[in-house]
Amino acid sequence: MHHSTILTGIVHLVGAGPGSADLLTLRALRLLERADVIVHDRLVSEEILALANPAAERIYVGKRRSEHCLPQEQINELLVRLAHSHACVVRLKGGDPFIFGRGGEEAEAVAAAGIEVQIVPGVTAALGCAAQAGIPLTHRGIARSVTFVTGHTKDGQLDVDFPGLARSLMVGHGGSTVAVYMGIATMPALAAGLAAEGLDLSVSAALIERGGTPRQRELRGSLGELAARAQAWTDGGPALLIIGEVTAAHLARAHQFAAVAV
Amino acid sequence: MHHSTILTGIVHLVGAGPGSADLLTLRALRLLERADVIVHDRLVSEEILALANPAAERIYVGKRRSEHCLPQEQINELLVRLAHSHACVVRLKGGDPFIFGRGGEEAEAVAAAGIEVQIVPGVTAALGCAAQAGIPLTHRGIARSVTFVTGHTKDGQLDVDFPGLARSLMVGHGGSTVAVYMGIATMPALAAGLAAEGLDLSVSAALIERGGTPRQRELRGSLGELAARAQAWTDGGPALLIIGEVTAAHLARAHQFAAVAV
Repeated sequence: MHHSTILTGIVHLVGAGPGSADLLTLRALRLLERADVIVHDRLVSEEILALANPAAERIYVGKRRSEHCLPQEQINELLVRLAHSHACVVRLKGGDPFIFGRGGEEAEAVAAAGIEVQIVPGVTAALGCAAQAGIPLTHRGIARSVTFVTGHTKDGQLDVDFPGLARSLMVGHGGSTVAVYMGIATMPALAAGLAAEGLDLSVSAALIERGGTPRQRELRGSLGELAARAQAWTDGGPALLIIGEVTAAHLARAHQFAAVAV
Repeated sequence: MHHSTILTGIVHLVGAGPGSADLLTLRALRLLERADVIVHDRLVSEEILALANPAAERIYVGKRRSEHCLPQEQINELLVRLAHSHACVVRLKGGDPFIFGRGGEEAEAVAAAGIEVQIVPGVTAALGCAAQAGIPLTHRGIARSVTFVTGHTKDGQLDVDFPGLARSLMVGHGGSTVAVYMGIATMPALAAGLAAEGLDLSVSAALIERGGTPRQRELRGSLGELAARAQAWTDGGPALLIIGEVTAAHLARAHQFAAVAV
């Protein structure tokens, strides 16, 4: 799609999946091989970048919590600028671009500048972690729904609906699973907020670090135990918290297989 | 992993993604190429099966709503039996094995028989549909969480927590997205159940058929409108319903790009 008489490129917002290169989609791989420039963050591994067109320019805009290399607005502008000088711009994001990846904002900014955007979905962290840990996010008779929330704060507060989240985890409401992205730093606040809404913190949970990679680590226990131990346990990798009966011991045992090898 | 003195194979529960072959993961492709036998259902396309080892035996256990070719218990037993005569058993499932795929049950049954199981995550339908339709499932200031539920019935009733789901969709609770898998047949019941809990059915929604494939179709409108029109509109393909402000017109316009081409 060309706008006015100036040729512009296409911006591809590409989900890189949970970490292992072999959890890229074929479409993502093909775009990496064709890319003229790749804009990536810290959740994208070297193993994945090694698959890209060696001639492609690489721009690191790595984001950590409260330590953004480049503010979101500048990333948006960068993508627009790059599309004016490169045919194939790949914006590579950990997981899926539309699950806590701010892909919607980047897509809007690029589209607003009259540049074509394509979104390539990816295996989001919750799916990668669940598969490798052997935790079915939905399970007949145990979890009839799953909710993804983020442990990031907004204006200093956890950005979750505590009453709704607590309700979904309470026995008697039919069973549900909650996956909390990037939730280690705020786990004590999350647990306290849920307890204040009446949730019994003996609910089963699993904390998974570097999920979906060969270096995946797991901590299982009650939500209360995990909230108390998480800070000492983590070694700083990206982490996902899964809360709900699907993480309970009897299922975990049956599913230990999956943690063995990938 | 070998149990007793009899060699057994490994059962791989593999997510095939939303439909297009290029949304397979590299790991899924490699397993298909190596498979000795492939057990698949109707959500897995011919385009994907064409990538498999041509010498692999194929077993169709296709499931439709209320028209199971093979009951779940027999699929479980089949997987166990196949692992006693095949080194690499691939159970190929549409989307992700642990999102409404009954993968947890199959994994438990196979593990209980002493057979190794590996889970390969896939791009679940909600992510595939959202990417192609340009609908960010989470979006700053609009949707801070996303919930996946199923439109399937259990004992004749929709298996959802209506009060909780209605709450999550109400303005004032911070914004949320709900994705309903396989929800066309039960949309009127879903809408009525949510309305009974106080949800205003003018909430924006998008109905996506054959999402994540080149034949994707979309219907947008309020939840009330879609519930009234869905039966006449559908041509019977697998469908996903997305409810929430992220499907609203102003975002849809900005994101129309994505519906153009894949």
